[in-house]
Amino acid sequence: MSRKLTVSIDAMGSDAGPSMVVSALARALPRHPTVNYILHGDEAELTKLLGRRKAKLASRLTIRHAPRAVKMEDKPSLALRRGRDTSMWRSIVSVKDGEADVAVSAGNTGALMAMSMYHLGVLDGISRPAIACLMPSRLGQCVFLDVGANVECDARQLVDFAVMGEAFARAVLGLERPTVGILNIGEEEVKGNNEVRDAAHTLRNANLPIEFYGFVEGNDITNHTVDVVVTDGFTGNVAIKTAEGAAKLIATYLRGALKRSFTARLGAFLASGALKSLRSRLNPSAANGGIFLGLNGLVVKSHGGSDAFGFASAIDMAIDMAEGDVISRIRADQAGINAGREPDNA
Amino acid sequence: MSRKLTVSIDAMGSDAGPSMVVSALARALPRHPTVNYILHGDEAELTKLLGRRKAKLASRLTIRHAPRAVKMEDKPSLALRRGRDTSMWRSIVSVKDGEADVAVSAGNTGALMAMSMYHLGVLDGISRPAIACLMPSRLGQCVFLDVGANVECDARQLVDFAVMGEAFARAVLGLERPTVGILNIGEEEVKGNNEVRDAAHTLRNANLPIEFYGFVEGNDITNHTVDVVVTDGFTGNVAIKTAEGAAKLIATYLRGALKRSFTARLGAFLASGALKSLRSRLNPSAANGGIFLGLNGLVVKSHGGSDAFGFASAIDMAIDMAEGDVISRIRADQAGINAGREPDNA
Repeated sequence: MSRKLTVSIDAMGSDAGPSMVVSALARALPRHPTVNYILHGDEAELTKLLGRRKAKLASRLTIRHAPRAVKMEDKPSLALRRGRDTSMWRSIVSVKDGEADVAVSAGNTGALMAMSMYHLGVLDGISRPAIACLMPSRLGQCVFLDVGANVECDARQLVDFAVMGEAFARAVLGLERPTVGILNIGEEEVKGNNEVRDAAHTLRNANLPIEFYGFVEGNDITNHTVDVVVTDGFTGNVAIKTAEGAAKLIATYLRGALKRSFTARLGAFLASGALKSLRSRLNPSAANGGIFLGLNGLVVKSHGGSDAFGFASAIDMAIDMAEGDVISRIRADQAGINAGREPDNA
Repeated sequence: MSRKLTVSIDAMGSDAGPSMVVSALARALPRHPTVNYILHGDEAELTKLLGRRKAKLASRLTIRHAPRAVKMEDKPSLALRRGRDTSMWRSIVSVKDGEADVAVSAGNTGALMAMSMYHLGVLDGISRPAIACLMPSRLGQCVFLDVGANVECDARQLVDFAVMGEAFARAVLGLERPTVGILNIGEEEVKGNNEVRDAAHTLRNANLPIEFYGFVEGNDITNHTVDVVVTDGFTGNVAIKTAEGAAKLIATYLRGALKRSFTARLGAFLASGALKSLRSRLNPSAANGGIFLGLNGLVVKSHGGSDAFGFASAIDMAIDMAEGDVISRIRADQAGINAGREPDNA
């Protein structure tokens, strides 16, 4: 692209409010010295929060006033009907109009997906968009989708998710030939429901440009058995929230255990640097941003309860996606998939 | 019961072999001084493993020779057709014949469920049995089912799981009025698929003797929002394995972090007692035994990769279930449910 990469930010939608978004921006700015930003939200409030930085950043940062914000409890359908003057709506319109390359919001996920579908549309050949996230794993991180956009998924959708997840892994994680697995309750071909079996059959037998591993189980996500793990949005959402809960419980156990005796407390003090680095690796705000895949435009959802650290990670992710040109890659793969599917239809 | 409580043990089915089972028995024996045991398996091998203990335990321990063992990779249908002379088969027959109160096996889960259904049958009014497990939680542990017996579940089955899980929580966890939630991807009534919505409708509106909380999310399991969490066997299996994987990854991070510097290593040494107690709380072998619910007899599945510690926990659980008379409680609740359902059918 000829102009500089531009990120459109919904500054109002998060639980933590616009001050968190402004702190996140302060973290992101030095990391990406050539990227520009459009902040959508309450102009007076944002101007105040930016303070002296506003003048300094004038060449890279534009504030666009939006009088309202989508609330966390708003129904997606209602938000879509009455959302025209919200910061979320306008942050997506910036992408639609081509003045930004990617939108980032920490707001209501359902409303963000509904508005994204309305404005950007779904990619040709993809039945429904999905939300992907990066799960921490033994080898770094792996791509996991769908984590909540589609409660029930047929085999065709699961195959689409495989295509989208694989393209994302190449574009953003820089993997040349990522491996893909379908989440199941056993590795054997006979396990699971019809949807996962049919999807596996297509991925195994059609002439697709995908390194399909087969079925994987829940523990294979953190064990990094494959680079991309595909599942329906119900199972995926439950899985990430259960893992998050487990991590939180372990952190509680650990704090409790290390407070129990004087030597344990002393030990915890000496090991505090190491334990702090552990906490940052487990930080769910770093991992659990949602990446919208399958749309004709780029949108990243930062975790609703996200802090500035998490929102800044979501901005990083948004920039990686725009630079990696995820959409063109999905489009090319999708064309390959349809070519590969033809023998089945003949 | 007039005679002493008796546990029937499949000594051969585990990955770790019969020596693990014998070590587990050595742990369990002093904890339950009045309980008797029947060990099914290779008589020569078991006699050798028991050594001098055999004569000492003669009044409490019987060995029953079984020439074969079900293998982990055997298909359940095949194991059922050709399993007559296996230690697993015979351990269940001991329960069927009334010479034991409960069976414990660390073998092939599918084969164990198939044989249990064949010999013991399903309780009247229950459509399909389920496998429950105890998940570690902020307040101790909560009951989670189904974790793998039923890949697809309709609303009726989910209601059955609620009944069975609640009865189990009263019988074994000693809770007077356990709360029950259905796992979903949001707390709102409109979320999720038809099955969870219909099951919630029944539990909310029919006149059932169950403290129904409503929908819960994945992180509510460890957060102990309710005492019993109900889901289908696909989602449940993925959830426990994902949580197990997360716990394992965190342990790896922790070990790595505490080895990185001299002060961290010294700290870890001083805190080693505390960290050891943490490890034992996270020990999946203690938590992940599978409890078969909905059968006309009691069967406990110890984790396949279980060590003696885990298998001994499964024996503890089996004894708790027999003493708590889980089956009578499920039967009584089920009768109440059917009475409560009548207005719907009228």
